[in-house]
Amino acid sequence: MRQIDWVIGFDADDTLWHNESIFEHTHERYRALLAQFHDQATVDRTLFATEMRNLELYGYGVKGFTLSAIETAIQLTAGKIRAEEIQHLIELGRDMLAHPVELLDGVAETLAGLAGQHRMLVITKGDLRDQERKLTKSGLADHFQHVEIVSEKNAGTYTAILRRHGITAERFLMVGNSLKSDILPVLALGGAGAFVPYRITWAAERVEQMPAAVDRLFQLKSFCELPAVLRGMAQR
Amino acid sequence: MRQIDWVIGFDADDTLWHNESIFEHTHERYRALLAQFHDQATVDRTLFATEMRNLELYGYGVKGFTLSAIETAIQLTAGKIRAEEIQHLIELGRDMLAHPVELLDGVAETLAGLAGQHRMLVITKGDLRDQERKLTKSGLADHFQHVEIVSEKNAGTYTAILRRHGITAERFLMVGNSLKSDILPVLALGGAGAFVPYRITWAAERVEQMPAAVDRLFQLKSFCELPAVLRGMAQR
Repeated sequence: MRQIDWVIGFDADDTLWHNESIFEHTHERYRALLAQFHDQATVDRTLFATEMRNLELYGYGVKGFTLSAIETAIQLTAGKIRAEEIQHLIELGRDMLAHPVELLDGVAETLAGLAGQHRMLVITKGDLRDQERKLTKSGLADHFQHVEIVSEKNAGTYTAILRRHGITAERFLMVGNSLKSDILPVLALGGAGAFVPYRITWAAERVEQMPAAVDRLFQLKSFCELPAVLRGMAQR
Repeated sequence: MRQIDWVIGFDADDTLWHNESIFEHTHERYRALLAQFHDQATVDRTLFATEMRNLELYGYGVKGFTLSAIETAIQLTAGKIRAEEIQHLIELGRDMLAHPVELLDGVAETLAGLAGQHRMLVITKGDLRDQERKLTKSGLADHFQHVEIVSEKNAGTYTAILRRHGITAERFLMVGNSLKSDILPVLALGGAGAFVPYRITWAAERVEQMPAAVDRLFQLKSFCELPAVLRGMAQR
């Protein structure tokens, strides 16, 4: 079976388990907290601008998000926000970190089916401890030979990971919900991508258009379609 | 030369470059901010208690420290702290992240001398992006074959790292300023430790007493003594 040659990389947040839905819930509570000062669009726009400004220093993840949310709240209320409301924001952040891991539909069964046939690894960005904790809580850790938690996902990161594990780009398939972070850099290296969109895409991960249709890019409606994609690739 | 067989692991913060001194400076400004409410000992004790309570969720690093500092300030002022003072805490945190990397005495020359003779790696904990940025800014990155940024440094972490890189514990020397994180777990696995104390040790890293004198533990006054330690080990 030729498909045994493919090494599969998996993004984690919004590919294996729900994540943006947790941020969405927090955003709703954040807008409610600031509703007496500003409309929803202003709150969203200002928070996102703060996050982007802080990204280089903070990196991705809940702790940096929480700090940006506090900073934005102070800015948008011209310092009128009360300390107890800032404490509430800290607790919202902690709730996100302590949130149960909820797997996406079909992930557990699909991974269990593929685990014996392929070398599989997780490649994810975010806070180190948070990503480790979620992987442990997911119950999926045993399926993966390697776990790579990185601060950015670009062609350089993928090149280093593939080299470190002796993986040929031409036999590497990356599965994820972000065209920008999971698919485009891997296609650029000569690898294949299985794009599985999530219900919500964080603004920082959006790209304007799909890459030109190449025979190494697959768009899936559900994670469950992954074995069929691999069978199709093996027959070529 | 037998010493060529030794693989050397290096802690980063307070081993290769100054770190606790930056925290110390921030602590001074933090105590000044809260001086009208509480004495220095109460501020220090309460902040440390908050940090330890949050450690499991936040992990190590500046972002978690900043969140704990904000939470403690709200608690110690019974909510009377003003938003602009919280903004000041956020900026103190950002200053720490943006701080220049200042190498410890002798580190640059010593590492340059050892680099051709030994496989060397960095094993550090903290915020992923912050540690990567410091390593880049340090100018030392090219000396290391591998960089491992981990969420905790215990026997399990070291076992996994040694296995991943095919390193035998009996030929592994770990260099660091923390007995708890750098030395004891490596000695427990059968490796060697070079303990180079820093001027200040964070309370969470303190251990009550030195481990029993074993022939695999070396206490150095300065990083510059490392080549002599390795020569001594080669002659045994």
